[in-house]
Amino acid sequence: MKKSQEFVQQHKERFLEELFDLLRIPSVSAQSEHKGDMVRTAEWLREALLKAGADRAEVMPTEGNPVVFAEKIVDPAKPTVVVYGHYDVMPEDPKGEWLTEPFEPVVKDGRIWCRGADDDKGQLYMHAKAFEAMVAAGELPCNVKFMLEGEEEIGSPSLYGWCEQNKELVKGDIILVSDTSMVSWQQPSITCGLRGLCYMQVEVTGPDHDLHSGLFGGAVANPANVLCDLINKLVDENGRITIPGFYDDVRELTPEERENFNKAPYNKENYMKGIGVEELAGESGYTTIERTGVRPSLDVNGIWGGYTLEGTKTIIPSKASAKISMRLVPNQNWEKIAVLFEDYFRSIAPATVKVDVKSLHGGQPYVSPTDMVAYRAAEKAVEESFGVRPLPFFSGGSIPIVSGFESILGMKSILIGFGLSKDAIHSPNESFGLEQFYTGIETIIRFYKHFSAMSAE
Amino acid sequence: MKKSQEFVQQHKERFLEELFDLLRIPSVSAQSEHKGDMVRTAEWLREALLKAGADRAEVMPTEGNPVVFAEKIVDPAKPTVVVYGHYDVMPEDPKGEWLTEPFEPVVKDGRIWCRGADDDKGQLYMHAKAFEAMVAAGELPCNVKFMLEGEEEIGSPSLYGWCEQNKELVKGDIILVSDTSMVSWQQPSITCGLRGLCYMQVEVTGPDHDLHSGLFGGAVANPANVLCDLINKLVDENGRITIPGFYDDVRELTPEERENFNKAPYNKENYMKGIGVEELAGESGYTTIERTGVRPSLDVNGIWGGYTLEGTKTIIPSKASAKISMRLVPNQNWEKIAVLFEDYFRSIAPATVKVDVKSLHGGQPYVSPTDMVAYRAAEKAVEESFGVRPLPFFSGGSIPIVSGFESILGMKSILIGFGLSKDAIHSPNESFGLEQFYTGIETIIRFYKHFSAMSAE
Repeated sequence: MKKSQEFVQQHKERFLEELFDLLRIPSVSAQSEHKGDMVRTAEWLREALLKAGADRAEVMPTEGNPVVFAEKIVDPAKPTVVVYGHYDVMPEDPKGEWLTEPFEPVVKDGRIWCRGADDDKGQLYMHAKAFEAMVAAGELPCNVKFMLEGEEEIGSPSLYGWCEQNKELVKGDIILVSDTSMVSWQQPSITCGLRGLCYMQVEVTGPDHDLHSGLFGGAVANPANVLCDLINKLVDENGRITIPGFYDDVRELTPEERENFNKAPYNKENYMKGIGVEELAGESGYTTIERTGVRPSLDVNGIWGGYTLEGTKTIIPSKASAKISMRLVPNQNWEKIAVLFEDYFRSIAPATVKVDVKSLHGGQPYVSPTDMVAYRAAEKAVEESFGVRPLPFFSGGSIPIVSGFESILGMKSILIGFGLSKDAIHSPNESFGLEQFYTGIETIIRFYKHFSAMSAE
Repeated sequence: MKKSQEFVQQHKERFLEELFDLLRIPSVSAQSEHKGDMVRTAEWLREALLKAGADRAEVMPTEGNPVVFAEKIVDPAKPTVVVYGHYDVMPEDPKGEWLTEPFEPVVKDGRIWCRGADDDKGQLYMHAKAFEAMVAAGELPCNVKFMLEGEEEIGSPSLYGWCEQNKELVKGDIILVSDTSMVSWQQPSITCGLRGLCYMQVEVTGPDHDLHSGLFGGAVANPANVLCDLINKLVDENGRITIPGFYDDVRELTPEERENFNKAPYNKENYMKGIGVEELAGESGYTTIERTGVRPSLDVNGIWGGYTLEGTKTIIPSKASAKISMRLVPNQNWEKIAVLFEDYFRSIAPATVKVDVKSLHGGQPYVSPTDMVAYRAAEKAVEESFGVRPLPFFSGGSIPIVSGFESILGMKSILIGFGLSKDAIHSPNESFGLEQFYTGIETIIRFYKHFSAMSAE
């Protein structure tokens, strides 16, 4: 693969310029005003994959945002790698906290600053460029398919159906995903577990219009106060979620598993410094690594109600709402949890208010076995690039569709992500190191080499 | 006063057109973008009072919005009525719930629909027109001064200082205020007590930027969840405020006072229907009339944090905030309560977050004695207009400056308001009945007659 790696070195600057064009399109899937941007991004990727060497590339419509599919079949007898990535990004909100324009990439301090720089445009584009390099160098050792969606950040609602309808088209031996992070640049890792997600929205309604808080204060249930009470009842003082049945399917780790799991490098001071807090919190009896990797969690993602602008307004608001999501761990089922949540939330609401509960999206947890060929190939590729053997690591994040790939397509996924926690994905000032981008491309090329060779053994 | 009342009948339509011009100016004191509108409104009122017959009228600058002062001195030996009103209004937010434009008055079903139609532009303009009618008819029986401010809805921060500096200018025998409501149109009332107000804003900060809720969920205190917990801790399950010392200065009513107080007409079904709730709430052991009239209360007026737009965003927000106000009852002191609130809120906050607490504004509770001349004159005027003897009534609302008038100017206030609960002040679709407006003007003229006559006795 020497020529492929040389090709990368020769075209580094062009690769970056192309990525910048991709980053400039504000492909925010959560906001309907960006509908046109989603199609533009898909078209852009289709052309980029054709130019990179695909035999065919298509923008395939779905009920939501289109899927970009592309492939290069070098020999039907050889293994096939299916690259998955997503071209949609998180909203820029809160815009005021960005130090640069959210959709205008800037290189500073060796990093690309832009929404999507890491998650997932930067990471998916590494695959397009690794592919181009291998094709250009005449070294592509296997078949490659690309399946790029535009709805990952909203739970991939259309990709499940697309996979059902395109099982043959997308058939392959392994799904290759770069949409995760490493423990650190010094301690690379391969993600072998992902938490699931159950994302709910609740609305509490009191009076049918905002009331004067002087004339009515003290005589009427205030939906904002009630919402606080209800949210507070969802987690107890030991950090345990109180929804009846919530933990029923959670498997407790064995002492040995816990011991292994806690071998991952973790420095409490650095961890706290990285996020700017002076004390951590969480479920009693578990370490931070366990709390984020193999224990479920519940968080308010957003809350709003009443007067939230400058100054004062003396009202009892008519409504108050919150977005609340739960991360789930292996064996939990998000659809079951959504029902448990709704039942419990309704059951604890007082008769003085009305509540509305809906499930916005969800995804099942996923485990990637460390004994499969793809894992061993990835391990070798990462070790060659970093000079350090990567740790298998359970990530707290979720890529709901990954468990869908297994159930619908019967394919396992290998998660080689090059993100770092400082990339601040989903936050203002998202960034991606140039070194991460280029090392990612090199490592992906190495993965193709080892995976093809090991599969042939 | 026959000629004055005839004058009103002859000029009804013009009075309404003028009020509409006043209502069209969006004089929202809480929002700095309306700074220019405040000055426009003050200038408009100055001219209107000159035209109505004032000898002098001035727009007097303050550190905030200007005070409009006007007067007509018919005879220094006669009593002087000081009319107080406020030309600022509440924000229109939430705009989506208005059935008409918030600042374009419309008459429908015999009512004026517009922000400020009642509170307080509609009510203050009744005074300008009653004054005009008496001047035009040559029947003005005493001296009149107008003191109209533009900051009542934000706690009158500048009027206290203005009063200190203009004690002589504004000197008089009674302050006449129409900024309250009646029990009902069938059961008119005169407000003899107002609750005080202590309005706070709190901010809870967790991590120094929004975090990915998958990667960090379970290991970090979520400021939105913590805020809910803290708010929940402010009121116990019996509806009692938990802030230590909060009730220290609250005087318990005697059984006799409670009995009298509860004689006011109250129909639970109608009360609930009027605000669209199926059950009431509040402090155990007290009636609805007591809960809103003579017991303190605590309400979240607004709450916000994290992602609140369409769809989903999987974050642990960095911050969450709330506006929280308390209504206070006689003997409570808002400055003391603000300190107690802040101390308590800080004391219950966990070490996993930082909290910021500030006091936005406040005002002392007020009691208007029923044995003063002005009360008896008002009682007679209302009885003549309505054919029913008005009840003395404790309102749950606050007009903080009213207690300031007593402490700074040494003058009592008489609160003859013509509002009704259906006017929906501070809410979308505020309105004011044409009958309320015209009956108000007539009753004010009657008040002048009786007050002058009784003062001369």
